Amino acid sequence: MKKISFFVCLGLFLFQIQHSAAAELPISDATSECVDCHASVHPGIVQDWRNSRHAGITPKDAMAVEGLARKVSSSRVPDNLKGTVVGCAECHMLRPKAHADTFEHNGYDIHVVVSPADCATCHSEEATQYAENLMSHAYDNLAENPLYQKLQRSIIGIKKRDQDRLTYEAAEDATKAEACYYCHGTKLKVTGKEIRDTEAAGELEFPVIAGWPNQGVGRVNLDGSLGSCSACHTRHAFSIEMARKPYTCKECHVGPDVPAFKVYAASKHGNIFSAMHQSWDFNAVPWTIGKDFTAPTCAACHVSLLVNGDEEVVSERTHQMNNRLPWRIFGLVYAHPHPQNPDTTVIRNKDGQPLPTSLDGTPAADFLINAKEQDKRRKSMQSACLNCHATPWVKGHWQRFESTIHETNRDTRIATGIMQDSWQGGYADSNNNPFDEAIEKKWTDVWQFYANGIRFASAMGGGGDYGVYADGRYQLSQALLEMNDWLNLHRKLGASAKK
Amino acid sequence: MKKISFFVCLGLFLFQIQHSAAAELPISDATSECVDCHASVHPGIVQDWRNSRHAGITPKDAMAVEGLARKVSSSRVPDNLKGTVVGCAECHMLRPKAHADTFEHNGYDIHVVVSPADCATCHSEEATQYAENLMSHAYDNLAENPLYQKLQRSIIGIKKRDQDRLTYEAAEDATKAEACYYCHGTKLKVTGKEIRDTEAAGELEFPVIAGWPNQGVGRVNLDGSLGSCSACHTRHAFSIEMARKPYTCKECHVGPDVPAFKVYAASKHGNIFSAMHQSWDFNAVPWTIGKDFTAPTCAACHVSLLVNGDEEVVSERTHQMNNRLPWRIFGLVYAHPHPQNPDTTVIRNKDGQPLPTSLDGTPAADFLINAKEQDKRRKSMQSACLNCHATPWVKGHWQRFESTIHETNRDTRIATGIMQDSWQGGYADSNNNPFDEAIEKKWTDVWQFYANGIRFASAMGGGGDYGVYADGRYQLSQALLEMNDWLNLHRKLGASAKK
Amino acid sequence: MKKISFFVCLGLFLFQIQHSAAAELPISDATSECVDCHASVHPGIVQDWRNSRHAGITPKDAMAVEGLARKVSSSRVPDNLKGTVVGCAECHMLRPKAHADTFEHNGYDIHVVVSPADCATCHSEEATQYAENLMSHAYDNLAENPLYQKLQRSIIGIKKRDQDRLTYEAAEDATKAEACYYCHGTKLKVTGKEIRDTEAAGELEFPVIAGWPNQGVGRVNLDGSLGSCSACHTRHAFSIEMARKPYTCKECHVGPDVPAFKVYAASKHGNIFSAMHQSWDFNAVPWTIGKDFTAPTCAACHVSLLVNGDEEVVSERTHQMNNRLPWRIFGLVYAHPHPQNPDTTVIRNKDGQPLPTSLDGTPAADFLINAKEQDKRRKSMQSACLNCHATPWVKGHWQRFESTIHETNRDTRIATGIMQDSWQGGYADSNNNPFDEAIEKKWTDVWQFYANGIRFASAMGGGGDYGVYADGRYQLSQALLEMNDWLNLHRKLGASAKK
Repeated sequence: MKKISFFVCLGLFLFQIQHSAAAELPISDATSECVDCHASVHPGIVQDWRNSRHAGITPKDAMAVEGLARKVSSSRVPDNLKGTVVGCAECHMLRPKAHADTFEHNGYDIHVVVSPADCATCHSEEATQYAENLMSHAYDNLAENPLYQKLQRSIIGIKKRDQDRLTYEAAEDATKAEACYYCHGTKLKVTGKEIRDTEAAGELEFPVIAGWPNQGVGRVNLDGSLGSCSACHTRHAFSIEMARKPYTCKECHVGPDVPAFKVYAASKHGNIFSAMHQSWDFNAVPWTIGKDFTAPTCAACHVSLLVNGDEEVVSERTHQMNNRLPWRIFGLVYAHPHPQNPDTTVIRNKDGQPLPTSLDGTPAADFLINAKEQDKRRKSMQSACLNCHATPWVKGHWQRFESTIHETNRDTRIATGIMQDSWQGGYADSNNNPFDEAIEKKWTDVWQFYANGIRFASAMGGGGDYGVYADGRYQLSQALLEMNDWLNLHRKLGASAKK
Repeated sequence: MKKISFFVCLGLFLFQIQHSAAAELPISDATSECVDCHASVHPGIVQDWRNSRHAGITPKDAMAVEGLARKVSSSRVPDNLKGTVVGCAECHMLRPKAHADTFEHNGYDIHVVVSPADCATCHSEEATQYAENLMSHAYDNLAENPLYQKLQRSIIGIKKRDQDRLTYEAAEDATKAEACYYCHGTKLKVTGKEIRDTEAAGELEFPVIAGWPNQGVGRVNLDGSLGSCSACHTRHAFSIEMARKPYTCKECHVGPDVPAFKVYAASKHGNIFSAMHQSWDFNAVPWTIGKDFTAPTCAACHVSLLVNGDEEVVSERTHQMNNRLPWRIFGLVYAHPHPQNPDTTVIRNKDGQPLPTSLDGTPAADFLINAKEQDKRRKSMQSACLNCHATPWVKGHWQRFESTIHETNRDTRIATGIMQDSWQGGYADSNNNPFDEAIEKKWTDVWQFYANGIRFASAMGGGGDYGVYADGRYQLSQALLEMNDWLNLHRKLGASAKK
Repeated sequence: MKKISFFVCLGLFLFQIQHSAAAELPISDATSECVDCHASVHPGIVQDWRNSRHAGITPKDAMAVEGLARKVSSSRVPDNLKGTVVGCAECHMLRPKAHADTFEHNGYDIHVVVSPADCATCHSEEATQYAENLMSHAYDNLAENPLYQKLQRSIIGIKKRDQDRLTYEAAEDATKAEACYYCHGTKLKVTGKEIRDTEAAGELEFPVIAGWPNQGVGRVNLDGSLGSCSACHTRHAFSIEMARKPYTCKECHVGPDVPAFKVYAASKHGNIFSAMHQSWDFNAVPWTIGKDFTAPTCAACHVSLLVNGDEEVVSERTHQMNNRLPWRIFGLVYAHPHPQNPDTTVIRNKDGQPLPTSLDGTPAADFLINAKEQDKRRKSMQSACLNCHATPWVKGHWQRFESTIHETNRDTRIATGIMQDSWQGGYADSNNNPFDEAIEKKWTDVWQFYANGIRFASAMGGGGDYGVYADGRYQLSQALLEMNDWLNLHRKLGASAKK
């Protein structure tokens, strides 16, 4: 409120004049025709778009912006797209032959699912970077890893009770789309066509798309491209503001396996965000530390182009994201240096399993970044920290964080030891599926929930409740003890059975 | 900020003049007298009211509003109430003979607890609708269902340890009022009178009301009416804005049995709400999709009067709420078509139990809505979805959702099978109370927490973390396995005991 | 928005003029010199400070404020500090000989860690009050209590698997700093010096501080003082606004042991806060009920100076906090009257253990406040409630709350009885450590999570989900049953082993 003055009001008034003028920006004939019907049929979509930056500037004007404020990264954009705002037709009619869902609609070739390869027309750098992001491969990294498929089946498979045990069949498609692949992304496929009697225009033909709707980060699109920009830049506003707020990341990063949002919200950074962000500027590009915002959100550390008060670049924009991450703290089953390749299906550990670490904790080093690359990435992340924290603070934080990685890996090793003894003693069976018995689920709790949660709390919060009593070290200790109790009980029962 | 211009400032200035005038609106003598003391004694209450719509308009002016913007639904309001704003006396002195807590207070007949039947004076349609809402019967639906009373006792009853088992006596009134009946509503009763030495006016006599305070949705009031409007329209502001924000629903819908708020907050809709709602208009009536708000809150889908940009009605206002709900996804013990009658105590399943489904999964169809009514309600809900989503999107979402209902019911059937085998094997006892042993609690976890949570995540989020790792399919699978392990162990021990 | 008018705009304009002038307030030469470099090196820190009240007023002007609005509580402030704003040098150069981390830095004696004893220069009353707050002793109260150290070791100690059991060694310092002592505060110690090659000024020498960074509430500072004001008044803005918002308290009060934030956020008070706080004034001193805010935050009940609409004091400001608390609802192992002394290491129960209650539930009465003091504190808290709630409401709430204390203590007694039978039967071992076995963890769940959570839900919410299904009475009942099952199983196995 302090900053609102008469001059601010005046400025806003002048801005408003300019902004109102935006409504008179050139719109393509095709888009006009879309809007003619869809403003009535889908008012929410059209209104979102009207409020968006896409509706407020032409690519030509956007490309005329110099320096760090430029948002269109492509150096060349087709001439026929440059002069009108980016409307319905500009995206849904791009590259019609590339999309399997292209269909004739009132004289136009339309496709339903806009893909990163479409967005790349103007945002080529972001698309290129995102292709290096593990998230873009989230479908295959899960669906084509035979071991993870066993984990998946043990959770979402069709359960049957067979005598004294539970068995699992492959999950239904509907379940898959709602569960793992809601975030990982579905594999879209055109399965046919259907005629629908529409209110606005009578009978029309549309493609039928299996796996739709979905906006998962690794969606396999109908042009073969991977990912969905609208996972974070929600359709049809595609806003920077929304992507920079942590609520967007929360959608897939709130559960006990990756409790990033919970941990952030309870951290000092999250506290400052929650208490003060009403006065921040989430639209400024570049994003100035201290001026536009006073504590990082997820985007600040992992994605955004940051500058300091002298307009010097602190962090380059990246949609690869992992280039600021020395460690992958999501344990599989141990935390490990980040994979070199976003396609993790190629990884084999020393025992030949498709895992980035062996069950004894050895990293599959050939497939992971080396210490030098880790160091580079560590420095890259720390360069943001150092704008608000002195060197010893940052150093202290990172020492603890990396100590926590080792600590939680050590505890995971203990859990895995008990699990292996259970398998070897014949009290559980790893051959069929190492994840589908009660004791195996408790083992999974240790590394997938508690060890992960403790690391996230360390990385993003410097510790606190989520490192101790909230799915933290307390629960990890408890699970180890319960696993051990279970093994002791079954050894005892086994011995007594032999008597 | 974009929208604030000089003209907006000017408009606000003019509005302010008009609004200031509101302070000069006619106030009844009785209310003036109330305020004279209570502005000092209870400044928070009086200030809330002063900021409210009730203090800013007379019923006469409110009734003069034409069309969808009208908020007073009663066609007739007593003349003596029309000309003054709705203040203390207008509500707390209504229908004095109907209220058992009416007492003489400085020359006026006052009652403490204002009820929906009082509010119906101006808001008759809402009161009528709400009487059809299951929530209005939440007290009896719990307190008069003998089976749910066993569940209640196993949770909040007074526990005793008796040899090798735990027993339960009826819960204390204080516990009941804080636990189940905090949300369900208490049954109020005048138990006597007391004289208190007040600071403002010396010794005064007041009624003593058992069950007070409470603002549960099914409160049994002292005039015999059911419910509390202030459960959502918080006293003494009674605002539309607050009722439309999801935080209000959170108060009773955040636990693992009905994690609606958690699920919503992690959904795309919730993400948009959290990130963008600062610029929405929560007071507009009717509520225009795309203009006033860009993603639904709880109220948008379940209660509010929605229009599209052409001011066509998309959804009628309803305080019945279930008339947009084909399914009751809160499993008892299976999800089922919605009950026909808000009084669910009349329901009997085929085995004679007061449950909407049998333990084998058969719905108590005579008491539940039929497929035709389900279809009508499904369409009623979908009409809102279709403003921002194309038909295949909505269809795909609902296919998955209804598949999830079947999937979670199927899993609940497995859990119930293990439970029944445990009862039949004599390892647990269902005769006394089917909910009060450790294994029975684990069974309850399955259908009351995990199956419910998965369905809420499906319905409100289309899936995500709350469908998998956050009290979702992972935990459901784990609970099934642990139940099975327990049964196997006890069979083994039982067999060994027989040797 | 209603309140913004042309006059408001004008007022803000005039305020802006005055505020802009603030930038021309006298800054000390030393601070100017700090800022010269650090504005580039640590722009986030400098910008936070520039936006702060410390940068906007001199102590002299702040001391000239009369009455309740005065924020500087010290009656005397050194003359050399009065005339310039409170900048870097004013805090980091205070009392150089008292701080073990004082080092020569570009000609100045600087210390890294500013302590409450530094802040006391201007805020002496707050510092004095805080020294009576249990939180200021949070380090010793944990680190010097031999029994709590056993609990600590069982959670964060280095785990080893030794034959059929798990053993624990002392935790690593890095783990301690991230876990328990993140909130409790670390014990800081200068362990040496190091030379760093700085970008801005070449090689410089700095102290090395073990335990840094930390901003825990009971941090043991390098001048021997206890606590960190920046735990709540986050550096370098030190704002009242942030401390008054519940997000700040959340940082340490969100886990299942002290779920205050979760409970609050799901309460009616939290609902009103979440829905309406955008229009509240969080900077007003004193804080006027109904005008500045319409529902309490954590600070309103526990800390802030509250007045009613007549500017009469409702609650005095306190940084002691416990002087409004009759009960300590954080069970150790039972809830009990608040300790008399913030140093709880002196407490011994009747069995000689360093616990405020005995395992049979008897309070260590000699060390706890008596009924008279409890009554005084209860009234002190209720005086705030009464501004928005009539006497029967407040009375009813407190009757239930205190009933819940007794109820949860009674249930804790049952859990402890089962635990004691397990120890006596030789199925668990309390001699070495009563917290480090699976069954002991389940016992800990009962009193540290569920009983606590139920009490917090009662105190701050009047009940609701967190009192029943969300780590509430349901889970408490379940844990009791599982403990009982476990004991029965082991008795059976023990008996069968003896055969």
